[in-house]
Amino acid sequence: MNTPLILDGKTLAANIEKDLKVRVQRIKDITNETPVLATIIVGNDPASVTYVKMKGNACTRVGMKSLKIEMPEETSTEELIEKIRELNRDKNVHGILLQHPVPGHIDEMACFNEIDLLKDVDGVNTNTFGRMTMQLDSFKCATPYSIMTILKHYNIQIEGKDVVVIGRSPILGKPVAMMLLNENATVTICHSKTKDLEDIVKRADIVVAAVGKPKFVKAEWIKEGCVLVDAGYNQGNVGDIDLENAIEKCSAYTPVPGGVGPMTINCLISQTVESAERKLGLI
Amino acid sequence: MNTPLILDGKTLAANIEKDLKVRVQRIKDITNETPVLATIIVGNDPASVTYVKMKGNACTRVGMKSLKIEMPEETSTEELIEKIRELNRDKNVHGILLQHPVPGHIDEMACFNEIDLLKDVDGVNTNTFGRMTMQLDSFKCATPYSIMTILKHYNIQIEGKDVVVIGRSPILGKPVAMMLLNENATVTICHSKTKDLEDIVKRADIVVAAVGKPKFVKAEWIKEGCVLVDAGYNQGNVGDIDLENAIEKCSAYTPVPGGVGPMTINCLISQTVESAERKLGLI
Repeated sequence: MNTPLILDGKTLAANIEKDLKVRVQRIKDITNETPVLATIIVGNDPASVTYVKMKGNACTRVGMKSLKIEMPEETSTEELIEKIRELNRDKNVHGILLQHPVPGHIDEMACFNEIDLLKDVDGVNTNTFGRMTMQLDSFKCATPYSIMTILKHYNIQIEGKDVVVIGRSPILGKPVAMMLLNENATVTICHSKTKDLEDIVKRADIVVAAVGKPKFVKAEWIKEGCVLVDAGYNQGNVGDIDLENAIEKCSAYTPVPGGVGPMTINCLISQTVESAERKLGLI
Repeated sequence: MNTPLILDGKTLAANIEKDLKVRVQRIKDITNETPVLATIIVGNDPASVTYVKMKGNACTRVGMKSLKIEMPEETSTEELIEKIRELNRDKNVHGILLQHPVPGHIDEMACFNEIDLLKDVDGVNTNTFGRMTMQLDSFKCATPYSIMTILKHYNIQIEGKDVVVIGRSPILGKPVAMMLLNENATVTICHSKTKDLEDIVKRADIVVAAVGKPKFVKAEWIKEGCVLVDAGYNQGNVGDIDLENAIEKCSAYTPVPGGVGPMTINCLISQTVESAERKLGLI
């Protein structure tokens, strides 16, 4: 019987946290400063509230501070931009997270693009994306970065592999496709207008599912020995892949929960620590 | 016998030029100003000299001015950046073209990234790429934009098609892949580390070759009815596709020369006119 490798993001994140804790302590010892992640939440979408709380908790665990900014549902784009500019100027803030999604009347991308590149630790500014794609110095979009960190940690070969990314969102499908391309994968990007998705997935050595639809990717579509990366997290604790049935065919998979999710928060925290180290001249 | 559609970029460019001429005249009539494209060439690579001359001639044909800046081979990154900043500040300059490639000791990408987004009419700044990818208002990288303009003009269906892009350069492969994705193609990006390139190309409805190697894509790889876009231009007037032998299998193709090349210059000029119109409040 096939026993696939579990790409355990939770344990990996916990291990990386130990190192981050040491780095944060070093920052404090040398500079007397504490790295700060500013988290902005607009409105009170329950899932977003939970995510922001989890991110705040992660800050606490590594010895960082989080500066929680809660803005009302009716906040305008201009007001949100003003807040971001204030945080850009704030010398005590090393990273800025604007929790996605913001209410529909706000121009989210315009707000993302106001975040100073040096504080864009969630990697959402279009220029952060552009610089990453062109392999210049930049932070990286957190969820795609989480996926890449997991694949590398578990020694999943990427170079020369046929990778199929399902989904093309600005903060997941598009950036992860570019990251995989930069690691020398042959990348196919699929989406709602793709024809014969099943046939395309059947050829993949690695599948990255980022659709946001529960069990959208069927077990029958999976090639024997494929690596499954499930970036989805839907109601009922299920991902975008029918993992339950696909497990016996794959060679490795990210569980849901406990795969991509925990490492995403870890990447956010890790980039905030890096931002602080850079600002304080420690790297 | 199969008679494929010739995706004639030369005639298309000539037709669009007529319209550009009218727009330039309108700018002059209303504002008394003339759109100006600043062209920077560093060193004297013969091909680059020719390209810059062709771009200058295109400016003249539509009634625009070009401001030719020639810098010596030994120019440093800092000196080039200083020149770009000067042009960014110059109110009479509406577009800036830094002819690619610059001498090897110069950090080309750093220079591209100094170009003001509002004057980046060649579309080479990483944030221009990022904004284009995320479908925000932006100029577009000239060669990929040329390809898209040709495909749209000749009513080549893109949505739902399997498109294979061969090449992943910052100013060709990567941006054209994102543009095709935004037009709802299913895009596969191939490169030097791709395995079984032949098999991948054989499945393509549209092939975009941007490798820079003469006749790299073989006729045997082409699916019957495929659309061939050849962005290559190699010594001996040949592209990256063995067009001579592939013509009988394809349904449409961009000739070399006379395909993507002339439209690329046209896109540069067109975006400079647009920049002037915007700056002068005419659009």
